[in-house]
Amino acid sequence: MRGGVTLAEIHEQPAVLSRLLEKEARGITALGAHLQRHPPAAVMLAARGSSDNAALYGRYLIETRLRIPAALAAPSVVTVYGTTPRLRRMLVIGLSQSGRSPDIVAYVEAANAAGARTIGITNDAASPLARAANVTLLLHAGRERGIAATKTYTAQLCLLSLLVAALEGDRSFADRHRALPDLVAEALRTEPRIRAIATRYRGMVRCIVTSRGYNFATAREAALKLKETGYIAAEALSSADLLHGPIALVGRRFPVILIAPPGPMRTPLASIARRLTSQGARMIVVSPDARMLNAADEPVAVPAVEDALSPHVYVVPLQLLSLHLALARGLDPDHPRGLRKVTRVL
Amino acid sequence: MRGGVTLAEIHEQPAVLSRLLEKEARGITALGAHLQRHPPAAVMLAARGSSDNAALYGRYLIETRLRIPAALAAPSVVTVYGTTPRLRRMLVIGLSQSGRSPDIVAYVEAANAAGARTIGITNDAASPLARAANVTLLLHAGRERGIAATKTYTAQLCLLSLLVAALEGDRSFADRHRALPDLVAEALRTEPRIRAIATRYRGMVRCIVTSRGYNFATAREAALKLKETGYIAAEALSSADLLHGPIALVGRRFPVILIAPPGPMRTPLASIARRLTSQGARMIVVSPDARMLNAADEPVAVPAVEDALSPHVYVVPLQLLSLHLALARGLDPDHPRGLRKVTRVL
Repeated sequence: MRGGVTLAEIHEQPAVLSRLLEKEARGITALGAHLQRHPPAAVMLAARGSSDNAALYGRYLIETRLRIPAALAAPSVVTVYGTTPRLRRMLVIGLSQSGRSPDIVAYVEAANAAGARTIGITNDAASPLARAANVTLLLHAGRERGIAATKTYTAQLCLLSLLVAALEGDRSFADRHRALPDLVAEALRTEPRIRAIATRYRGMVRCIVTSRGYNFATAREAALKLKETGYIAAEALSSADLLHGPIALVGRRFPVILIAPPGPMRTPLASIARRLTSQGARMIVVSPDARMLNAADEPVAVPAVEDALSPHVYVVPLQLLSLHLALARGLDPDHPRGLRKVTRVL
Repeated sequence: MRGGVTLAEIHEQPAVLSRLLEKEARGITALGAHLQRHPPAAVMLAARGSSDNAALYGRYLIETRLRIPAALAAPSVVTVYGTTPRLRRMLVIGLSQSGRSPDIVAYVEAANAAGARTIGITNDAASPLARAANVTLLLHAGRERGIAATKTYTAQLCLLSLLVAALEGDRSFADRHRALPDLVAEALRTEPRIRAIATRYRGMVRCIVTSRGYNFATAREAALKLKETGYIAAEALSSADLLHGPIALVGRRFPVILIAPPGPMRTPLASIARRLTSQGARMIVVSPDARMLNAADEPVAVPAVEDALSPHVYVVPLQLLSLHLALARGLDPDHPRGLRKVTRVL
């Protein structure tokens, strides 16, 4: 079956998260306790592609829960411009499922040389990234054969939120991770509904994906999947950035995908939903919130999850949407045009 | 004439840059000398829209030339999640042409309270941003009436590069800014060629804009202008990120705009140009480099400018392209759908 590899990996996610929680939680608690004693002045996350979207989630979580300034690294500063920022007293986290993205490995090596502490997050314990980093956290996702990362993305989110819980010393937050495998399994049950939406939207060539805060990462990951497997010009914009210009693009029947979690983002996202509706947008809304869902052309109801852990769950229907849109468009999501599993950029 | 306001402001840019260099250069040198004595551990740049694209340029320039880690702030951490990262010993630069973006003002105020030093970059000396920041640098752009920022964008780039030159104590780099008004005037002479391209591309509904390093900001600013005035789903991707998935989107005749400056980015950008050509992309190339131009469907020759100052010049033909595409599509670039000059997001 076309897309069978990717679809199977999407459905593996509850099992991957269970395994990850079982195998890594204890080590992360110890690492967190160690880092707590010598807290970094700032955190730099270095990644590309889906890993970079996971890093974006990490960035928000680190700033909001730990109050440590965090940023996504610009690897070309090291690999092309040939300089290394002064990263002493900082923590650098490199994320790469294969552990073989040359620019991410190079950034982590440069960070070591500059006196930073480094953590590698990867699916391969024998990879160059695992060798380069001071400490490695493993995804335990099993071999990922799909070109489009799915199970390694949610595993990366989970490692990042566990790491933050450990650094925070918030045992309750760490414990609440145990609900994730079941919540993801529940989100997978949106598949029949998603398949129907994909059939109706198969002619879509462009769209905007929006959210804000932690789920801006979800919007970015959904847009990446829509581009790489569905060949749809999908751009992710935070709802704040959308208002600063790009909303002009939204005319009658322009497709917009909105991810609306519970929590503090509810009010700004309800406000953007009204703006988009008034401009005539055709809206797919992923939310647990009845009022947000009722405003949608295509409601996708997902379980209520606390804001900080919702990206792990709310990305799942969007992984399914990208896959089923690709199939509805006659494409093979297992073999996107021009891509291989490991991308080599320096 | 439709678009007359925005077009006039695009053409004002050489005069704005001359005025800025005359009025602010000395003050920035003094500020730079002061900051040099107490260098910040890191820099956070807070902005939205075009100002955020200028901030992205600043981020690369600060890391490559000053070796100070730099990042774009996530204002929602302060304004929606209600926490402030520990920004002591850091420099926070807020950019807003109007000085009235509430979330940027709130971020700068929170940064002050957290013990950071703050700089405001704005066109209005009496604005809330100017009042909030410890030090204000003014754009001297005259009133900007166009909804789409043009002259304030290049003025922001110029203030940022002058500030870096001052912090670096590199007098020669600061002096080389004096060539910018003439270089921008020369870039404006691409207009007849741009108008012809706009006629041929008037049916374009989506495209990718790509570059890397300093000119990733140019790609982002061009894509924003294409969205807000041309209603084109234009996404900016660094050439490295493009290879990590989105390149699958590029099939036969897919439009790609590539900005190829001289310097260290030449080799990676020549390589992505070959990839894009092999996938059948229809390429508009902005470059001073004959070989890059010869590989294009639509070459746009611009003057040779050193990499670090090229964004100030290479954005100009792309401002013109957005405007003339909007006109060719029967739109009014002075009145984009749903936008006002000051966007109020918290």
